[in-house]
Amino acid sequence: MKLPDITPTANPTLAAALDQAINNKTKPLGSLGALERLARQLGLIQGRTVVTIEHPAILVFAGDHGIVAEGVSAYPKDVTWQMVENFLADGAAINVFARQNGCALHVVDAGVDHDFGPRERLLDRKVANGTRNFAIEPAMSAAQCADAMVHGAALVAGLPGNVVGFGEMGIGNTTAAAALMHKLTGIPVAACVGAGTGLTPDGVLHKQRVIEAAVERHAGVDAPLDVLATFGGLEIAMMAGAMLQAASMRKVLLIDGFIVTSALLAAARIAPGVLDYCVFAHCSDESGHRRMLDALGATPLLQLGLRLGEGTGAALALPLLHAAANFLGQMATFESASVSEKSA
Amino acid sequence: MKLPDITPTANPTLAAALDQAINNKTKPLGSLGALERLARQLGLIQGRTVVTIEHPAILVFAGDHGIVAEGVSAYPKDVTWQMVENFLADGAAINVFARQNGCALHVVDAGVDHDFGPRERLLDRKVANGTRNFAIEPAMSAAQCADAMVHGAALVAGLPGNVVGFGEMGIGNTTAAAALMHKLTGIPVAACVGAGTGLTPDGVLHKQRVIEAAVERHAGVDAPLDVLATFGGLEIAMMAGAMLQAASMRKVLLIDGFIVTSALLAAARIAPGVLDYCVFAHCSDESGHRRMLDALGATPLLQLGLRLGEGTGAALALPLLHAAANFLGQMATFESASVSEKSA
Repeated sequence: MKLPDITPTANPTLAAALDQAINNKTKPLGSLGALERLARQLGLIQGRTVVTIEHPAILVFAGDHGIVAEGVSAYPKDVTWQMVENFLADGAAINVFARQNGCALHVVDAGVDHDFGPRERLLDRKVANGTRNFAIEPAMSAAQCADAMVHGAALVAGLPGNVVGFGEMGIGNTTAAAALMHKLTGIPVAACVGAGTGLTPDGVLHKQRVIEAAVERHAGVDAPLDVLATFGGLEIAMMAGAMLQAASMRKVLLIDGFIVTSALLAAARIAPGVLDYCVFAHCSDESGHRRMLDALGATPLLQLGLRLGEGTGAALALPLLHAAANFLGQMATFESASVSEKSA
Repeated sequence: MKLPDITPTANPTLAAALDQAINNKTKPLGSLGALERLARQLGLIQGRTVVTIEHPAILVFAGDHGIVAEGVSAYPKDVTWQMVENFLADGAAINVFARQNGCALHVVDAGVDHDFGPRERLLDRKVANGTRNFAIEPAMSAAQCADAMVHGAALVAGLPGNVVGFGEMGIGNTTAAAALMHKLTGIPVAACVGAGTGLTPDGVLHKQRVIEAAVERHAGVDAPLDVLATFGGLEIAMMAGAMLQAASMRKVLLIDGFIVTSALLAAARIAPGVLDYCVFAHCSDESGHRRMLDALGATPLLQLGLRLGEGTGAALALPLLHAAANFLGQMATFESASVSEKSA
């Protein structure tokens, strides 16, 4: 698997031009806060002082997890395929929010343990019927993990727009994400695990023990790609591949919650330049997400207490990307509007 | 001045029906966080389990402040009328964000010290050419304050929609708002003042001293309406009147930043029931706003570090109101989508 080249966005001349464009708008200096930082980042990604949001799309990657055999989720495994059906029927939260905010939605079967048959609106990229149970053996072979990443890259290469949001569905995938987080950041497992879809405190403790035992079993697995294959999920690996491709194409990556961020963590350990292209949509209520964001030096746009996944945080943050592009493109300057500047 | 009657929204039967509707959606319990609380509140305001956002409008109230003679602002007073011209020319941040989010925008001259002449898109409700300097004398007479409130109520009564956002423009109005905050909450002046449009630390200290001296001069002024007239602004009083009217008509009030919240603080001291109808859009970077929100028991939807006013936070939060209405109205239920519920 050849990894795509990612160019850093740093460009001091352009950054200065963006600062000047932002500071000349009719508002007190810095008074648009996070939107100013976002406009600057979008400008650096797109390489210009006028930015556009074109054909934004969210990819929702679904996959099953062998680790659910250890009793780590509050919901039965069948919910993965049932929710994929719900996505296809336009009934899930991500359908509602993507439609509301003018965002295309693509549902990808990365590795659901279910035969959907041929379905018009489902992108079949199934690598396997779920991962294996990483409490016992690696979740994926190196070849499966690479296959998933290549599929993800190809999916992004085929998208028309310049913003890609990431979402996921997979019962058990907060366990995989917490294991990845621990392995890739060194943060203790206890600080990586959370309630997922609704575990009790005892359930969270059990999940922690399952991960700790698996980490011990797979001691010595430390290279990012090996960690991803051993503890990850097919949907997580596919997202990591998609992210690297999107950054190589200078698209904006809209990063959702805990599981999506774990995929980014793996991608960033492989190619740190990917982070220049990431807009962090939301800080999830899943405990551990804040620490994971901190480990990436990331500041999310929204803190709404969501813990649903599916890309819902990404869809809800999209209007803020438009707002950043629009104030930069449409607001008057002090000069054009004949507004007095700050007193000396 | 007769104050409108405001009915509390509490309704245990409806609240239970809303909880059931929200909890039956295909998502883990509570996993839409703040959007679930918002949907519940909107349902209680509108008195039903399906909520709608109809013809949302933002009113931007502009007024000048005699207190600027004390050197409390980083920008010259002329910026108030110049920014009103900018609103009318569609060049300000609020124009951009309201247009983006499908929100009507109405600009109101509540008391700008400038002759605009007749202007098609400006609502002329000028009570006076700005307030008097409250370092020396009350900002408004009781009659002026009442006039402003009546105008605000009439403006809201003429709006077609069920969501009203509030915004303002007025050089010097963070000083008025900080004084109101101190008088209406008892929080020390030092914790109420901030940098406004960009004061230096020395400037903030001067602003604090100006307010402390004025509070001493007007000792004994304690009734909410008297406090509003003595320390407030024409745009602030007009907002307070508009808010009470909007709540009496069971409209949703979308509360913006520091100055708008100070108007609400006055309104809530007059009629506490208004708070049931308030959605808090944004926690401003103006120091003091967080404490003011705490004093109202309010949790804002956004924390983007904005400190611009104009109603920008309200406009940016509007998509979240749509999201709350839409998930409640459009998401499938576990039963309708045949998705398995949580394990026992």
